[in-house]
Amino acid sequence: MAAIAEVVSTYHRVPLPVVLSDSRHGTIEAFELCLVRVVDADGAEGTGYTVTVGRNGRAIMATLAEIAEIVAGADADLIEALWTRIWWALHYGGRGGPTVFAMSAFDMALWDLKARRVNLPLWRLLGGYEPAVPCYAGGVDLDFTLDALLAQTDRNLERGFRAIKMKVGRPRLSEDVARVAAMREHLGPDFPLMADANMAWTADVAIRAARALEPSRLVWLEEPTIPDDYAGHARVIAEGGVPVASGENLRTIRDFRALITAGGVSYPEPDVTNCGGITPFMKIAHLAEAFNLPVTSHGAHDVTVHLLAALPNRSFLEVHGFGLERYIDEPLQVRDGVATAPERPGHGIAFDRDALAKLG
Amino acid sequence: MAAIAEVVSTYHRVPLPVVLSDSRHGTIEAFELCLVRVVDADGAEGTGYTVTVGRNGRAIMATLAEIAEIVAGADADLIEALWTRIWWALHYGGRGGPTVFAMSAFDMALWDLKARRVNLPLWRLLGGYEPAVPCYAGGVDLDFTLDALLAQTDRNLERGFRAIKMKVGRPRLSEDVARVAAMREHLGPDFPLMADANMAWTADVAIRAARALEPSRLVWLEEPTIPDDYAGHARVIAEGGVPVASGENLRTIRDFRALITAGGVSYPEPDVTNCGGITPFMKIAHLAEAFNLPVTSHGAHDVTVHLLAALPNRSFLEVHGFGLERYIDEPLQVRDGVATAPERPGHGIAFDRDALAKLG
Repeated sequence: MAAIAEVVSTYHRVPLPVVLSDSRHGTIEAFELCLVRVVDADGAEGTGYTVTVGRNGRAIMATLAEIAEIVAGADADLIEALWTRIWWALHYGGRGGPTVFAMSAFDMALWDLKARRVNLPLWRLLGGYEPAVPCYAGGVDLDFTLDALLAQTDRNLERGFRAIKMKVGRPRLSEDVARVAAMREHLGPDFPLMADANMAWTADVAIRAARALEPSRLVWLEEPTIPDDYAGHARVIAEGGVPVASGENLRTIRDFRALITAGGVSYPEPDVTNCGGITPFMKIAHLAEAFNLPVTSHGAHDVTVHLLAALPNRSFLEVHGFGLERYIDEPLQVRDGVATAPERPGHGIAFDRDALAKLG
Repeated sequence: MAAIAEVVSTYHRVPLPVVLSDSRHGTIEAFELCLVRVVDADGAEGTGYTVTVGRNGRAIMATLAEIAEIVAGADADLIEALWTRIWWALHYGGRGGPTVFAMSAFDMALWDLKARRVNLPLWRLLGGYEPAVPCYAGGVDLDFTLDALLAQTDRNLERGFRAIKMKVGRPRLSEDVARVAAMREHLGPDFPLMADANMAWTADVAIRAARALEPSRLVWLEEPTIPDDYAGHARVIAEGGVPVASGENLRTIRDFRALITAGGVSYPEPDVTNCGGITPFMKIAHLAEAFNLPVTSHGAHDVTVHLLAALPNRSFLEVHGFGLERYIDEPLQVRDGVATAPERPGHGIAFDRDALAKLG
């Protein structure tokens, strides 16, 4: 046993390289990064993190302070036991929302610590399937002109991407249809293209959109409506005739169970930084496997590449990190559409803490 | 229009008069109180609050600071518009958990402000049904000896209660059965008696418990299992043969819709301090009415009496406020089983801010 000696959390407001926008979150000029370092009694360390699109990070920090109290002195190896202890300690004032972001960051740090102690990369520790993971470039580009969208696409192709996701949910559906058609034309008939509506629509509008977009043969339509309209999601798949990806706004394995059993998702899409961490992410992926569904991911690609590299039912890894790679020593590389989980111990991410500290 | 000029939030850690315990939250020595005061440009004020069982209140405070930024200068009368604006501004890093507690407190303050401006008590502003609301004493008494439980019961009868809820979920079911039987014997055959399991059980254990408790004819069995096991709740009703109350750990109208449509609840039980505020509480109650279900409540009786006084489908009001009445000028009075919504404007609660400030 190695007791938890220290849990240190820091908050950073990180400006985006370019201002982003989508149909629900408006313009995003900075993201919030909450970093957690767990140190055990032997001096071994693990690091975890979570991010927001600009708000409520201070609530996450407050919960991280609670977590530090709850786990002080506990055996860092017993991740399931700690996860359960924290869940119930915080349940009444905590179930859902920013609490789960905080738990995600802490859980990630524990897994990183465990993997580093045994000198294994996370993807091997978690089971090991295949380190080369197909990935796609996740664009946050709803308000880009068509020229800017196509220019971004060309840059993504040059960077090695062989699959791309774009935003939809413009004020007029005809604009979405024209933009997706232009992307399809630009990329050719077999290139994997996805579209993300960020909850812009009701189920009925989403069904209409799915049918209008049918000629562009999307791999999936993402978050067509609000996350807990499970029946609505199911209708989009059945009546819209399009596969659906969803999950970045679900916070528990039971949320995913509800969406999956409703027939509301083709590609479950957990985010390791907000589904409760690596522990629930793997359970969600295994749940998906039992339902014969491929699992994709949202955000945090540097960590998530390890998780998808450990899963036989993995689909595409989303590569989109708000420019976090500017603060990481060896950021993930994409080559010919594939990202490869590194062989460094743990998740292998070394943050540039000095540069982050300067951001405040 | 009266613009929001100021949103001031304060945090208080309030010691309990006696240490409490239930099957899930362990011992509780203090609760956290987050108070919000909204002042408009005319100097009119409204007050709202939320509480936790001792953890994560600082996360609520962090979100209240976000809310103050989001609503600065907005028209305080447009409560639905503000609720929606806050929901989406905080959605990614916020949906659920402490965020909803913060929204609850703020929404309550807006309704109080509106009612005070038009010089109406809340229960009249919200529709007006009947101010005398049947209520019950909510005991947090799992670890009381049987003697202490019966002594507490006698005090509750002297205080005017004509309905009582006790805790169940002891390590052995036979203990629960004996304690409930003793209470039934003590209170007589027709006295309304409820039991609260605080999520202690799986659905199957809860069904066994419900059947074992059947001779005591409970009005309801509360939270037999975790809040989002909707199918499990439905089984407890159908197979256990007992009405079920649940809702204090649900955070959205869609959580309630899911539980209700699953057939998982006989008495929906929202808490105005954690379901998103008065705005969602009334929607949940109206949803329940459409499903022909009576609505009960959890906590915050001084405010909630107004809500149930405005609702034709109201059931019992829970009276249980962690001893908050020590810090309120004119706390709610119970007479012959009934609590009466006051005719003072707004919710009519005047907090003793000096005494609270001394708590830190």
